[in-house]
Amino acid sequence: MIMRFRGAGRPAGASPQGPDTIVGMSEPQDILWMRRALDLARGVIYTTTPNPRVGCVIVRDGRILGEGATQPPGGPHAEIMALRAAQAAGHDPAGATVYVTLEPCSHFGRTPPCVDALVAAAPARVVVALGDPNPRVAGQGFARLRAAGIAVSAGVCENEALALNAGFVARMSRGTPWLWLKLAASLDGRSALHNGVSQWITGEAARADGHAWRARADLVLTGMGTVLKDNPQLNVRAIQTPRQPRKAVVDGQFRVPEDARLFDGTPAWVFTARQDADKAARLADKNVEVVCLPDAGGQRVDLAAMMRWLGEHECNEVHVEAGAGLSGALLAADCVDELLIYLAPVMLGDAAGMVQMPLLEHLDAARRFRFTDLARVGEDVRLQARDPSRWLALLASARRASEN
Amino acid sequence: MIMRFRGAGRPAGASPQGPDTIVGMSEPQDILWMRRALDLARGVIYTTTPNPRVGCVIVRDGRILGEGATQPPGGPHAEIMALRAAQAAGHDPAGATVYVTLEPCSHFGRTPPCVDALVAAAPARVVVALGDPNPRVAGQGFARLRAAGIAVSAGVCENEALALNAGFVARMSRGTPWLWLKLAASLDGRSALHNGVSQWITGEAARADGHAWRARADLVLTGMGTVLKDNPQLNVRAIQTPRQPRKAVVDGQFRVPEDARLFDGTPAWVFTARQDADKAARLADKNVEVVCLPDAGGQRVDLAAMMRWLGEHECNEVHVEAGAGLSGALLAADCVDELLIYLAPVMLGDAAGMVQMPLLEHLDAARRFRFTDLARVGEDVRLQARDPSRWLALLASARRASEN
Repeated sequence: MIMRFRGAGRPAGASPQGPDTIVGMSEPQDILWMRRALDLARGVIYTTTPNPRVGCVIVRDGRILGEGATQPPGGPHAEIMALRAAQAAGHDPAGATVYVTLEPCSHFGRTPPCVDALVAAAPARVVVALGDPNPRVAGQGFARLRAAGIAVSAGVCENEALALNAGFVARMSRGTPWLWLKLAASLDGRSALHNGVSQWITGEAARADGHAWRARADLVLTGMGTVLKDNPQLNVRAIQTPRQPRKAVVDGQFRVPEDARLFDGTPAWVFTARQDADKAARLADKNVEVVCLPDAGGQRVDLAAMMRWLGEHECNEVHVEAGAGLSGALLAADCVDELLIYLAPVMLGDAAGMVQMPLLEHLDAARRFRFTDLARVGEDVRLQARDPSRWLALLASARRASEN
Repeated sequence: MIMRFRGAGRPAGASPQGPDTIVGMSEPQDILWMRRALDLARGVIYTTTPNPRVGCVIVRDGRILGEGATQPPGGPHAEIMALRAAQAAGHDPAGATVYVTLEPCSHFGRTPPCVDALVAAAPARVVVALGDPNPRVAGQGFARLRAAGIAVSAGVCENEALALNAGFVARMSRGTPWLWLKLAASLDGRSALHNGVSQWITGEAARADGHAWRARADLVLTGMGTVLKDNPQLNVRAIQTPRQPRKAVVDGQFRVPEDARLFDGTPAWVFTARQDADKAARLADKNVEVVCLPDAGGQRVDLAAMMRWLGEHECNEVHVEAGAGLSGALLAADCVDELLIYLAPVMLGDAAGMVQMPLLEHLDAARRFRFTDLARVGEDVRLQARDPSRWLALLASARRASEN
C-alpha cells in the first residue's frame, strides 16, 4: 500500500503548516504510521496467541516499503513479514524507519530473534509503541538496535498498543492473564427476571459483539451455575474466527454434568477443588482436563491460584461469561481487570442482580474502575471500564523494558 | 454576530462543491442556520417556561441581520427579538430568510402574535424546525405566512427542536408534561448499599450535570421515602440558574414532616391521597400547596391523575429525583418518557436496586426505551433513553401542525 501525500513527505491528515510551525514535526507522522501498524496487529487479533499481536510498517520518504503482522505460533513475526514484503517489492529498508507495535524480540523462541533481522536490514530508526516485558526481551531488543547504531523511539501510541496485548503484558509482568467480565443486563442492572428468564435482555448485535470478545480470548470461562442453568456451548458462533478459544468451567465441587454442551471435543478445562479420578478419566476422553486447585474454603476454587495456573499455561486473556455467583466471586477475589458490560434500554425492577458479592459497609470499600469506552451496539450500549492501577502497572512494566 | 464565508453566500462548513453537485443546495445552509437558532433557544432554556424555548435568526446573503430568543414570560418572543435586533442594526428584513425553531404564534397571549410582525417585515422565506401543536397555533402560523406570500419550510432539525421543547409539545398535544427519571447508580444498578449508604456513588460532575437538568425543569419531584431518608433541598445549587424550579413531593398518606428542608418558602406542592385541612393550612404558610388527588388504592396517589393535574397547571417538564419506590411506581404507571441515568464505574453487588416494580414474568412485558445519548460526565457516564413511541407521537403532533 502506498499512502498519498499532499506535500513533501507529509502524510495526509498531518498539519498543512510548514515544519517550522510545529515543535517535534516527527510526532504526528509517527502516530499516523504507528496507527497503521496497530491496524495490522488488530488484523491478527484472533490468531497469534500465546504470542502477542504485533504489526510492523517500514516507511521511507512517506512511502510504505513493506508491512506485516505476526503469523500464527511458529510462523514469522511482524518485523520479518514486513522485511520480506519490502524485499518482495524490491525495496531496500536500509535507512528507512520501522514502526513496530511491540519491542522486537531478541531471543530464540520458535523463531530466530527479529532484532537480528532488523540489524541486518539497517534501518535508520525503529519506532516502538510498547516495550516487551517478557524477561527474555525486556529492553534487550532496544539495546541491540542501539548498539547497531539504529535510533530507537518508544512509547508512541502505547495505550492503544497495550489494549491489544494487555494479556500478554500481564502474563509476562505479573504472571497472570488479563481478565475481563462480560455481563449483560437491563439499564437497572438486572441480568434475569425473578423467574430466571434472561434470554435475551440484550439484542443480536450485543451478542455478536460479545462473541468477538470471546474470539480474541485464550479462554472463555464460566461457572457451574451457568452450566446447569443455560448449558451454554461457549464457543464463537456469531462471528467468523479462524480459531476457537479454549473453554473452562469453575466447579469447586466437581458436579459438572459429563454431557454438558461445552464439552464438545475441543480442549476444555474444569477447575475444581475436589478430586474424582474416575470422572476425570471419563472427561479426559472428551478432551477435558480436570485441574484440581487449592480449596478457598467450602469446596470453592481458590481463584487467585487459578489465575496463576492460567498464567503458567500460556493464557493471556480470559473472557468470563458467567452468572452473578462466579462474576461476584472474581470481583471479591480481586481477579477482575476489566468490565465489559452490555446494557439494554429497559428497566426490570426486582430481578436477579449482575453480581453477588459480600456486603459492603462503605462505598470506599468498592474497587473503582475507570471508563475507557462507551459505544452503542445495536439497540444496546456497551460500557468498558478498567482497573486503573492495574493498567498503569502494565504500562510501567512495558516502560521499564524501554528504559533498560 | 456576522458569520464569515469562504465563498459567495456559502457558510463555513458547507460543501465546497458548486450547487450543481448537491441536490437541494439549500439544505446544508438551512441546517447550519437552524442550528444557530437552536443554540439561541438553548441559551434561554432556564427562563421561558411555561412558554417554549425558541430561537430566531434572520439571514440574507449569508449574513445574520438579527437574531434573538424568547424572553421570560410576558416578554417578547424570539421572532420579535430578532426583528428588533435587525432594526437596531439598520437592516431591513424584507426579502430575507427567517429561521425559527418553533412555528410563529398566531394568537394573542401575553404578547401580540409574532406572525403579524413577520408578515409586516416581509421576509421572502420562513424556515421552521417544529410545528406548534398548541391548538391556538397548530398550523395557523404557517397558513398566515403563506397567505402573505411568504415561502414556508418546516421540519428542519425537528428532533433537536423537539428535544428543547418536548415538555411544551407534550403538554399541548397530550395534556401532560414530559417526565424524566433521574437515577444514579453503580454499574450494576445499585443506588445504595444494604445499610442505606448512597452518598455519593456518582461524582461531583454528575451531580452538577443533574442540577442542570433540575434547572431546566418546571418541577423537581420526589417521593416521601427520599424526604424521610435524605431530607433533600431539591433546589439547584451546583450550577448558576436565574430561576429555581418548583418542588413537589408525592406523599399518598400525607406524612411529610412540616419542617422538611424542601419547604424553604419557595413554591412547592404536596400530592396526596389523604385530606388533612389543618396540616394543609399550616403548610400553606410555607408557600406549600397541598393537592389532594384520586387514590390509586391504599392511600397511594393516582400518578396518571397527577400528570394530568400537572399538565393543567402549566408544567412542561418534570424532573424526578426519587428513590426506588416512586421511580418504580412511575414506570409501572407508564408515566415515564425518558431516563437520565448516571452510572459510576464501580460494582456493589447485593445492595438496593434502582427501581421497585411489580414482578415481570416475561421480558416482553418490560417497556423498551431507546438510547439517545451516551456521555462521560467526570468519572461517570450518563445514559439517556426515551420512550420511542411517545417521542414519535410528539413529533407527529408537531408535524400535523405544519400540514394543516
